[in-house]
Amino acid sequence: MEPVKLYDTTLRDGAQREGISFSVVDKLHIAQKLDELGIHYIEGGWPGSNPKDVEFFERARNLSLTNSALVAFGSTRHPEGKAETDANLLALADAGVKVVTIVGKSSVQQVTQVLEIALEENLGMIADSIRYLRSRGLTVFFDAEHFFDGYRADPEYSLRVVIVAAEAGADGVVLCDTNGGSIPEQIVTAVAAVKERSSVPLGIHCHNDSELAVANSLAAVSAGVTQVQGTINGYGERCGNANLCSIIPGLKLKMGIDCVSDEHLAKLTEVAHYVSEVANLVPDPFTPYVGLSAFSHKGGLHVSGIEKWVDAYQHIDPARVGSQQRVVVSELSGKRNIIYKAREMGLDIPVQGKEAQKLLEQVKQAESRGFQYEGAEASFELLVHRARPDYQPPFSLVDFMVVVEAKRRPSSRKGYEDTLSEAMVKVRVGKEVMHTAAEGNGPVNALDQALRKALLQFYPSLAQVELIDYKVRILEESVGTGSLVRVLIELSDGVEEWQTVGSSTNIIEASWLALADGLEYWLLKRKP
Amino acid sequence: MEPVKLYDTTLRDGAQREGISFSVVDKLHIAQKLDELGIHYIEGGWPGSNPKDVEFFERARNLSLTNSALVAFGSTRHPEGKAETDANLLALADAGVKVVTIVGKSSVQQVTQVLEIALEENLGMIADSIRYLRSRGLTVFFDAEHFFDGYRADPEYSLRVVIVAAEAGADGVVLCDTNGGSIPEQIVTAVAAVKERSSVPLGIHCHNDSELAVANSLAAVSAGVTQVQGTINGYGERCGNANLCSIIPGLKLKMGIDCVSDEHLAKLTEVAHYVSEVANLVPDPFTPYVGLSAFSHKGGLHVSGIEKWVDAYQHIDPARVGSQQRVVVSELSGKRNIIYKAREMGLDIPVQGKEAQKLLEQVKQAESRGFQYEGAEASFELLVHRARPDYQPPFSLVDFMVVVEAKRRPSSRKGYEDTLSEAMVKVRVGKEVMHTAAEGNGPVNALDQALRKALLQFYPSLAQVELIDYKVRILEESVGTGSLVRVLIELSDGVEEWQTVGSSTNIIEASWLALADGLEYWLLKRKP
Repeated sequence: MEPVKLYDTTLRDGAQREGISFSVVDKLHIAQKLDELGIHYIEGGWPGSNPKDVEFFERARNLSLTNSALVAFGSTRHPEGKAETDANLLALADAGVKVVTIVGKSSVQQVTQVLEIALEENLGMIADSIRYLRSRGLTVFFDAEHFFDGYRADPEYSLRVVIVAAEAGADGVVLCDTNGGSIPEQIVTAVAAVKERSSVPLGIHCHNDSELAVANSLAAVSAGVTQVQGTINGYGERCGNANLCSIIPGLKLKMGIDCVSDEHLAKLTEVAHYVSEVANLVPDPFTPYVGLSAFSHKGGLHVSGIEKWVDAYQHIDPARVGSQQRVVVSELSGKRNIIYKAREMGLDIPVQGKEAQKLLEQVKQAESRGFQYEGAEASFELLVHRARPDYQPPFSLVDFMVVVEAKRRPSSRKGYEDTLSEAMVKVRVGKEVMHTAAEGNGPVNALDQALRKALLQFYPSLAQVELIDYKVRILEESVGTGSLVRVLIELSDGVEEWQTVGSSTNIIEASWLALADGLEYWLLKRKP
Repeated sequence: MEPVKLYDTTLRDGAQREGISFSVVDKLHIAQKLDELGIHYIEGGWPGSNPKDVEFFERARNLSLTNSALVAFGSTRHPEGKAETDANLLALADAGVKVVTIVGKSSVQQVTQVLEIALEENLGMIADSIRYLRSRGLTVFFDAEHFFDGYRADPEYSLRVVIVAAEAGADGVVLCDTNGGSIPEQIVTAVAAVKERSSVPLGIHCHNDSELAVANSLAAVSAGVTQVQGTINGYGERCGNANLCSIIPGLKLKMGIDCVSDEHLAKLTEVAHYVSEVANLVPDPFTPYVGLSAFSHKGGLHVSGIEKWVDAYQHIDPARVGSQQRVVVSELSGKRNIIYKAREMGLDIPVQGKEAQKLLEQVKQAESRGFQYEGAEASFELLVHRARPDYQPPFSLVDFMVVVEAKRRPSSRKGYEDTLSEAMVKVRVGKEVMHTAAEGNGPVNALDQALRKALLQFYPSLAQVELIDYKVRILEESVGTGSLVRVLIELSDGVEEWQTVGSSTNIIEASWLALADGLEYWLLKRKP
């Protein structure tokens, strides 16, 4: 089958997801990363609709993209205006890109009930707009909005929209399942009907409202579409856009269709996590191909299966998408999982049957107190070390105290301007007991500062270690503030990252335990 | 097309998801709820594999299920044993259910490399086990594990497994895409091949590793399968099982296939949220049909569209699945959204153009300080009230202080047994300033206690209000403990629930602001 061109709209349609708000710099970084993934087209934004996007295209002129063409998005001309003087079209033509996409309605009801204009007028807007942008020397894609809904209600008009766009010179017409309501059979039928009437290159743009966006996109390719639009991690409004992270390996590994190189594909997981980080969203661990759990094994039976045959419970070699197999330590684990896990982590201590059993009991006990080692492997490794009778910790916690005080200024109605957080900690290192105090930006930060103050005298290299993520999960949610609180933190020394866990009914104590584990882990690793 | 029977495996396969651990009581509650949804078969667990599931089936005898049959799950007999004396099969026969499902391998490689037995022996195990269970008067379904992978590698053996199971008397054979690697075309081809060789009723069991589990299940139904297995919310190991919450409306609303009644379908959202609550997981807002965002609108253009035509941007009437349309208040909002939202909330204050503009500015300003009103509508409503010049708050915060102290007992290596949390708060009610102090189970609980102590004297009805959920989200994750912290809390008076938000670099202050909003909202609502 023909190769497929990938068209990413994370920066425009993806940003419509609730909770996402990209800065211009975020968008520039993501564009660079999409280029590294071998994406063919990157839709950067809608310069006609907001000043942030104008700035993006301005600054994007300095990007050096190897694989990708940047695309500016906009709509067809205003109903009562002319294309040549339409502000939105001019913004597109002046965006400094070679490729633009404009969207227009391709459903009778949308034109008459939402746009509230005549059907012929809509066709005129589409044709004029495409012709004008083509006359400015641009490659023009036309997004036929609501195409599939329109086709089902009144096929003839929707097909006419495509034909009009093609005749006006569109370089491609993208059929949109805007409301995400189509099923694959409907996609295939409609694409076939278009191909009977026009030879214009076709694209597909799906939304995931029926949990079928990936299937619909793949079905459209089978039916002859050669451009697929989607977003990284399937970000997008409502239930999201078609997820390129599943579509790309689906096309390449499942359907044998050329779209990105093997090297590009192996960057998929990295790019997916990068985008979620920039979007300030926790990566969904359960997402296909790129999720942390996508190739993880929890049940004892599965673990014994993969020991005999690595592919027994995985559908592809995870390395193809830049991921890896992973065994999860959890209360469902058998002794075998613990051994497998310790081996996987390259622990040099022997984990024989009896020791593993003891460890398993410790894991179970800790989990009943709210600890969980999924996602906190450094704490698990510490547990392995602590199970050894001869283990000497680099420091041990004695006690701590935290004070948070907020005074409202009499004149202010807007929160506290004099919030003070202080911590005092007592830590034992060898025979010495250190007693320190520090202020901080919040109670956990104050604890972090005080703990470091105590330890830096003995371990100056700790200065390199930085707290880079802090997550809180409330367990037993029905009990409100009296619930068990689990804190997961991530630390980095600039080279590697590691994760630890702490749990308590007291959020400060849980944070303190995770923090201490994080520093202890690093000292342990650096020692020899 | 023939009606489809729904087979839920949330309680067994769903529980394999990382982070889920159901108690026996949890499972009984969920079974009851699945019955209300009209699910035909509820797989309750594997009595032969763990004592918790034995207890579940014991106690499930007292459930009164109207629509559902409870199913016990197990595997075929042990390679070297006899069916009549196989502990696993006996546990199934004695589980007190009328329907059982047993799983066996249907792939050459799985039999020879993982089970490590002869291919004929595997067929014997399957036939013996089914015959025995049938002889005990049970309805028997056979799960053909790894069927699709096996069929692609060596079709003849996989087909033989199905035929052997059918000839042994299986009431249905369920074709499993165990590793979740198949695409719809492969499903359709393999189902067709089975149907050519056997007339046994077929089922489908998919996993979501390729983000195609829903599409594969629907494709299998199109190809003639009459039982669909899946889980609520698509819970399951790795990337999850096929999501019944998308399959049920897909079958009924998109394909016109009979499976549950209209009344049952309207319970879908409620059941989905119920199961996630029992599983102690935050419901995924972006999930199709049942997610909070599935029918929500953020962009100003979309909001103006749905004002003209309610279906402009939704693929089904959300009421069909027990959900509703929702407009989101966010920094992307236009003035129009604010007005729409205020109207939707039935606010009796007029939100005219100018007032809405002022409010929008307040929303934007608060959002830049980390507040977010998506999911905290009570705080949004307070904002609307506070925008009025004549608003008189029922109380106002003056200041607070929190102390957390932990002392490690010299003998203990296991955390702090003497953790103390205390809070002092100063609150103004009318002309009086109350200064109170309280201890609590953690710092936020202490604040909650102290605040109530101050307010209860004036507003005794506050005693009914309970904090039922507390969520923490760290913003700007790259800055570690110095980041902005957003706290979302949920309160209840036993009848209704409401949500508020607080944000600060200090987690204690953020909690305090959310807590105070939560109480203020309730006092405001109760007043007249």
